[in-house]
Amino acid sequence: MLADALNHAQANRERYLAQLIDFLRIPSISTLSEHKPDIERAARWLGADMWRAGLERVQVMPTAGNPVVYGQWLHAGEGAPTILIYGHYDVQPVDPISLWDSPPFEAQIRDGLIYARGASDNKAQMFSHIKAIESMLSACGSLPVNVKLCFDGEEEVGSPNLEPFVRTHTELLAADAVVISDGPMIGEGQPSIDYALRGIVTVEMRITGPRRDLHSGSYGGSVHNPAQVVAEIVAALHDKDGRVTVPGFYDRVTPLSEEERELLSRVPYTQEQWQAETGVAVPWGEPEYSIFERMTARPTLEVNGMWGGFTGEGFKTIIPREAGAKISMRLVAAQDPQEIAQLFTDFVKRLAPQTVQVDVITTAGAAAAVTPYNSRWIRAAARAYQAVWSLPAVLGRGGGSLPIVATFQKELNAPFVLMPFGLDDNRHSPNEHYHIDYFYRGIETAIHYQHFLLDEGGDA
Amino acid sequence: MLADALNHAQANRERYLAQLIDFLRIPSISTLSEHKPDIERAARWLGADMWRAGLERVQVMPTAGNPVVYGQWLHAGEGAPTILIYGHYDVQPVDPISLWDSPPFEAQIRDGLIYARGASDNKAQMFSHIKAIESMLSACGSLPVNVKLCFDGEEEVGSPNLEPFVRTHTELLAADAVVISDGPMIGEGQPSIDYALRGIVTVEMRITGPRRDLHSGSYGGSVHNPAQVVAEIVAALHDKDGRVTVPGFYDRVTPLSEEERELLSRVPYTQEQWQAETGVAVPWGEPEYSIFERMTARPTLEVNGMWGGFTGEGFKTIIPREAGAKISMRLVAAQDPQEIAQLFTDFVKRLAPQTVQVDVITTAGAAAAVTPYNSRWIRAAARAYQAVWSLPAVLGRGGGSLPIVATFQKELNAPFVLMPFGLDDNRHSPNEHYHIDYFYRGIETAIHYQHFLLDEGGDA
Repeated sequence: MLADALNHAQANRERYLAQLIDFLRIPSISTLSEHKPDIERAARWLGADMWRAGLERVQVMPTAGNPVVYGQWLHAGEGAPTILIYGHYDVQPVDPISLWDSPPFEAQIRDGLIYARGASDNKAQMFSHIKAIESMLSACGSLPVNVKLCFDGEEEVGSPNLEPFVRTHTELLAADAVVISDGPMIGEGQPSIDYALRGIVTVEMRITGPRRDLHSGSYGGSVHNPAQVVAEIVAALHDKDGRVTVPGFYDRVTPLSEEERELLSRVPYTQEQWQAETGVAVPWGEPEYSIFERMTARPTLEVNGMWGGFTGEGFKTIIPREAGAKISMRLVAAQDPQEIAQLFTDFVKRLAPQTVQVDVITTAGAAAAVTPYNSRWIRAAARAYQAVWSLPAVLGRGGGSLPIVATFQKELNAPFVLMPFGLDDNRHSPNEHYHIDYFYRGIETAIHYQHFLLDEGGDA
Repeated sequence: MLADALNHAQANRERYLAQLIDFLRIPSISTLSEHKPDIERAARWLGADMWRAGLERVQVMPTAGNPVVYGQWLHAGEGAPTILIYGHYDVQPVDPISLWDSPPFEAQIRDGLIYARGASDNKAQMFSHIKAIESMLSACGSLPVNVKLCFDGEEEVGSPNLEPFVRTHTELLAADAVVISDGPMIGEGQPSIDYALRGIVTVEMRITGPRRDLHSGSYGGSVHNPAQVVAEIVAALHDKDGRVTVPGFYDRVTPLSEEERELLSRVPYTQEQWQAETGVAVPWGEPEYSIFERMTARPTLEVNGMWGGFTGEGFKTIIPREAGAKISMRLVAAQDPQEIAQLFTDFVKRLAPQTVQVDVITTAGAAAAVTPYNSRWIRAAARAYQAVWSLPAVLGRGGGSLPIVATFQKELNAPFVLMPFGLDDNRHSPNEHYHIDYFYRGIETAIHYQHFLLDEGGDA
């Protein structure tokens, strides 16, 4: 039965790839309202594909924002566990568009990679699960376990409507574990499983000064320049060792145990790999933590964007009327997004001089999530990777945020497993891509996973 | 003869205004290379107008950049002084275009104001001198003094080619004084004359970090964020009292004399006026100087633009690959632009952490200029203002920079008089405009000025 499904998956590779290309060509950017019709189109396309794959009760379910796409197959029989597979069909914006080597929604293939916004984050990865299910149902008429699939259209904007959706659909979504394939594996050909994710909260700071841009010759020296104020505030948000200075920021951070630091120290992530990935020579950040711990287990504050005044060709000698910054904070342990946003706002207001007006806008955030690293769900994932990638999977933490994971934990009381099929792949950057070979391996890993779940004990 | 010229000017007001509108409709933006053809068109239009006004030897003279437009009339007879009238026909860029109430090159008239980029800075003001000459030559066939006119096409980019032009044309341009009408009068209906201008030097700072934008979830906490580095450097460029911290910045600044501080304290510029003009409640800057002194007599450092990362709608959780700032410094006394740029660059390089790459680009600057405040050139200007505006002119310093003034001083050894006809007028901002009434008064003031020059003694 496992062999039949794998054979079917291999025989249908080209057809599955062609479907993925269709999916990637829908510019389902959730952060830009003008792409709302594309989001709707992507949701309908996805629902139709799931229905063709043999899933049941397939629905494009409206929310206050973008729809959730749902499907299920629940005929695995008594004693079989139920997993909820989560993914997202929305994608990041594409700018700076000029740095793309091919149009971001053309899905060009070059040297075994498929280039498209959303290729790795998250379309190819989530789609691997659907194609695994399609292969099993086509080849064998059944699945080893019960599955529910829930695909989000707002992950890239913090999933503001998925939380209420989960809260009002706990019966529909009830499962023994949540399975997510998103984010990168630790390195090329090296499978890895994450048992923790950082939370996130995003804020925007706007500094308003003069009523209009002022001539810097006429008023320079007498007006507090909003761009300078942004710089002054941003510069005050870290100390010289890279620690966040917002008072109370670390209050709810649990120190890492010696056992966990030992586990994390075994993650084969070197400074050389970091240098190769980032192109940066010298690391930065809290000196008492390893690079991997800084990237995954520690909370951070990052300027995602900063602006003010004239930035075109040449010079324009003005004092800008306003300036601002978009900032995100990654959270760990019990840091509460709302509380952190409030601490940030209070601190910025305290730093703000009376010479300007300072406004801070907070958008919804998400708490961090952590799950036991030796559950049956994780053990089965490790076996599936071993079968397909011929290497033991590394256990670690993920630095990114999937806002919904904390919600699933809270509302469904379910452990989770994060089993990525991709690499860094320029996610959130120009020239995002995905290894076509990894797409195929992801499908096979997902097929193995469902089979191995049955063998693993009941310690869920 | 004076009366005839004034009558002619009044009889031709509507025609002169129509010509000004034609002039304003040419988008002669010198900071953007795509407007090069408009610059050429403005130069030709101007030359033709000067020729029709009765000026001689009118020429559009090429430089390595934008052309200089020249004309003269030298038949005033023995003993009559020669003045060189300088102005510029290039204008600032228009962005943010969305804040304009009418297209910036449509020159719409609303409530006695004409709205256009370049209306006040400098087209209407320089054009007033041409129309004064046209009125005198039409009505009387002659001018009281010899005049030369020299109009720059690169003032808004720091006049990089006018300095060599002046150096190689000292005989053509030789004059007893340089007359410039640019910048604002001190207040509505209150004529003012400037005897000093600040210099300027502009620099651009670029911080490069990772090879590409990075996912802030994956790499946050381990990479020094270029936007944060820009903020850290910009924040370190002033102390908490608004003094510039660049070492050596103030070394060549001559302290203001008690006499001059007394003169400047008589300038009727109040905090209330500053508040009304800027829309800011609380002034900023060096506490030991008055607002007017900070704006005109003290050197400054201003962020004109700052950028980095994602600044569009929504959020994009990245660590940007690069960030930067455009900075201008206003100079006084003997501060040398090249030296100040070098001090700035050295300081920024010293502040720069080894976690990023820092580049500083310097564009050409200009020295400050100061001229005796009781010369015949200034006395005649005061009388001309009194005649037309029925108020004594206030003597003061100007905070802005006209790079060419220092060059004229050095190459032609000529004193200067800065006699503005405009107000703040949103120069360098959206909705730049000019009072049509001030356009007419400017023409009449320029006519009076040439007549009064003959009466004033020879203490030039």
